[in-house]
Amino acid sequence: MLNLRHIQEAMVRIRDSIFVSPFVYSETFSQLTGNTAFFKLDNLQMTGSFKERGALNKILLLTAEEKQRGVIAASAGNHAQAVAYSATRGYGADVILVGANYDETCDAALKRCAEQDLTFIHPFDDEAVIAGQGTLGLEMLEQQSGLDAVLVPIGGGGLIAGVACAFKETNPGIQVIGVQTSKLPSMKAAREHNGIVTVPTAKTIADGIAVRTAGTLTFPMVQKYVDDIVVVDEEEIASAILLLLEKEKTLTEGAGATATAAALHKKIPHRGKKLGIVNSGGNIDVTLLSRIIERGLVKDGRLVRLRIHLPDHPGALVRLSTVIADQKANIIQTSHDRAYYGAVLGDTVIDVTMETRGPDHIADLTAALEAANYLSERVQ
Amino acid sequence: MLNLRHIQEAMVRIRDSIFVSPFVYSETFSQLTGNTAFFKLDNLQMTGSFKERGALNKILLLTAEEKQRGVIAASAGNHAQAVAYSATRGYGADVILVGANYDETCDAALKRCAEQDLTFIHPFDDEAVIAGQGTLGLEMLEQQSGLDAVLVPIGGGGLIAGVACAFKETNPGIQVIGVQTSKLPSMKAAREHNGIVTVPTAKTIADGIAVRTAGTLTFPMVQKYVDDIVVVDEEEIASAILLLLEKEKTLTEGAGATATAAALHKKIPHRGKKLGIVNSGGNIDVTLLSRIIERGLVKDGRLVRLRIHLPDHPGALVRLSTVIADQKANIIQTSHDRAYYGAVLGDTVIDVTMETRGPDHIADLTAALEAANYLSERVQ
Repeated sequence: MLNLRHIQEAMVRIRDSIFVSPFVYSETFSQLTGNTAFFKLDNLQMTGSFKERGALNKILLLTAEEKQRGVIAASAGNHAQAVAYSATRGYGADVILVGANYDETCDAALKRCAEQDLTFIHPFDDEAVIAGQGTLGLEMLEQQSGLDAVLVPIGGGGLIAGVACAFKETNPGIQVIGVQTSKLPSMKAAREHNGIVTVPTAKTIADGIAVRTAGTLTFPMVQKYVDDIVVVDEEEIASAILLLLEKEKTLTEGAGATATAAALHKKIPHRGKKLGIVNSGGNIDVTLLSRIIERGLVKDGRLVRLRIHLPDHPGALVRLSTVIADQKANIIQTSHDRAYYGAVLGDTVIDVTMETRGPDHIADLTAALEAANYLSERVQ
Repeated sequence: MLNLRHIQEAMVRIRDSIFVSPFVYSETFSQLTGNTAFFKLDNLQMTGSFKERGALNKILLLTAEEKQRGVIAASAGNHAQAVAYSATRGYGADVILVGANYDETCDAALKRCAEQDLTFIHPFDDEAVIAGQGTLGLEMLEQQSGLDAVLVPIGGGGLIAGVACAFKETNPGIQVIGVQTSKLPSMKAAREHNGIVTVPTAKTIADGIAVRTAGTLTFPMVQKYVDDIVVVDEEEIASAILLLLEKEKTLTEGAGATATAAALHKKIPHRGKKLGIVNSGGNIDVTLLSRIIERGLVKDGRLVRLRIHLPDHPGALVRLSTVIADQKANIIQTSHDRAYYGAVLGDTVIDVTMETRGPDHIADLTAALEAANYLSERVQ
């Protein structure tokens, strides 16, 4: 089994080529979690995730002949990007889109690998890759002393296997807690069954850790070094992404935000402790981000849709919009309907979507509408 | 006039309380600008902007009696937050919302200041504040050697006055370039008129630098130390915010993104140089961010709306949506209309908003619609 020395050697190998990402104190998350919270921002790595560490260590360990033949990787994105970057330093790799999910992609890559005699770089189940990922743990130890516990996302287990080994072999007193999405808790299931199992396929915003089967190398390391595994759901991940963006000014992908979500939503019993939270990646599609922001605003009451009954005659909208303007709510969308939503004949129903300052502002707004004799209800 | 020694003294004073923000290399922006580009990420400062530096230095220089009486600040947000944070370390300040713009707010603050005998902490026109902001320049000098030029946002001029002094008094060979929004180019106007002028009021997404009149202390320092001032427009700022988010994984407010916008949109002649770009703040409302993302997606062709003529009978939408689904475009909104947009009788017109992969994908999509005999046009 891999040990601390391998990780230290990986560190020497990759140190000059990897960004030593900040490990920064967060006042907001310290207050929210009741701990002293630090974020390890590996989403700021050049390709936007920690995956460069393992990929580069693996590539630097290839023989001249293996390098000559070339490498191949299968990935949801981060690992392949990291391999391409490490191999070419210019993303000059062939990118082939195959498969509807990681398993199909992986099968296709293995087939091509055999046909063209390439070296397959596994995203997690490879000792050189795990040792590379472990350097993230060594950096955290160098950057902050006195940590009580660290929270690390788990997909296939490559990151946590390396990081947990680095921590536990240096200081066994530091707790290492893994975090998975509740949609694909493959490592947690393996732990509960005391053996690797395959969990059903599922869609998750944490696509970077959507791995159905724990690794054969990573699972024993997790058993040896990891204290606990907790899960977070989709809403919890989304709220962590939004809070990291608003308060920490940092962009995090779903998988990368799982450890933060676990701390934020009190999945761990720690209070008054010094916590290291790994933010493992930032490669999120901005379209998805825009949806997460919008849902978050609706949830916080900063965006609200009211369905309002309106007399169907000229000028009716002037009066209604005056009431709304007086409350300083900003209308961003309206839609009229005469025939639906139980509108009585001669009335129309209008859905008004508005930006507000939150629940108190919405209460003022609905009170003002009621005072002006409008029948309104909130659309969820 | 303020000199380097004041800034060095400020550094000693505030060093332990201020986050030494990362000054990081960006491969993406190096390629896009044809230079070697580094970002100074002061948006990661505790209150989300560089303003803490000046506010803290000022507060630490107050006499015991001044501290006892209390302080007051007027601000679009960042400066007041920084003052409150520095004064109380827990945001325990009274926050009073007065005025429709900075000038009105400032007048109200000065009035209350006189009434209650408080110490007014000016956001930029104060030597202690300027010296504090200058520490950002000293940090950049410590963090990266060999810089050819630095780009710094300008509002009232407090940041650039301090930073330019720090650079020029240390190494006059480093060019210092200021960046303003074209909506409120008050410092640029002062330079052109060789005297302070007040520019007309204007709305800008760079609200943090929406200052109509340059400072009486900052203007002479800008004249002495700053090599050039360039301006960027609203679209350029928005695209910089989006690119900083997508590529650098960092959240930047409008004012904070102006220096990046100047580099990105080639407002400076530099090529092959080592550039330091100051990202001065990250306090942007996520509602505004969501709009910037959406507009950016439309501009990039990753979000498109097509107006399509459709026969008005059952099943018509099935056939249309099959054509769209075959092209793997994701429909996110539709709206039907029978009577407008020049629909012939018996036809309906549908606006379909879709997520796409960009211009090539849109071309494929419209070709497929044409092949299936649909009349369509793009809605801008």
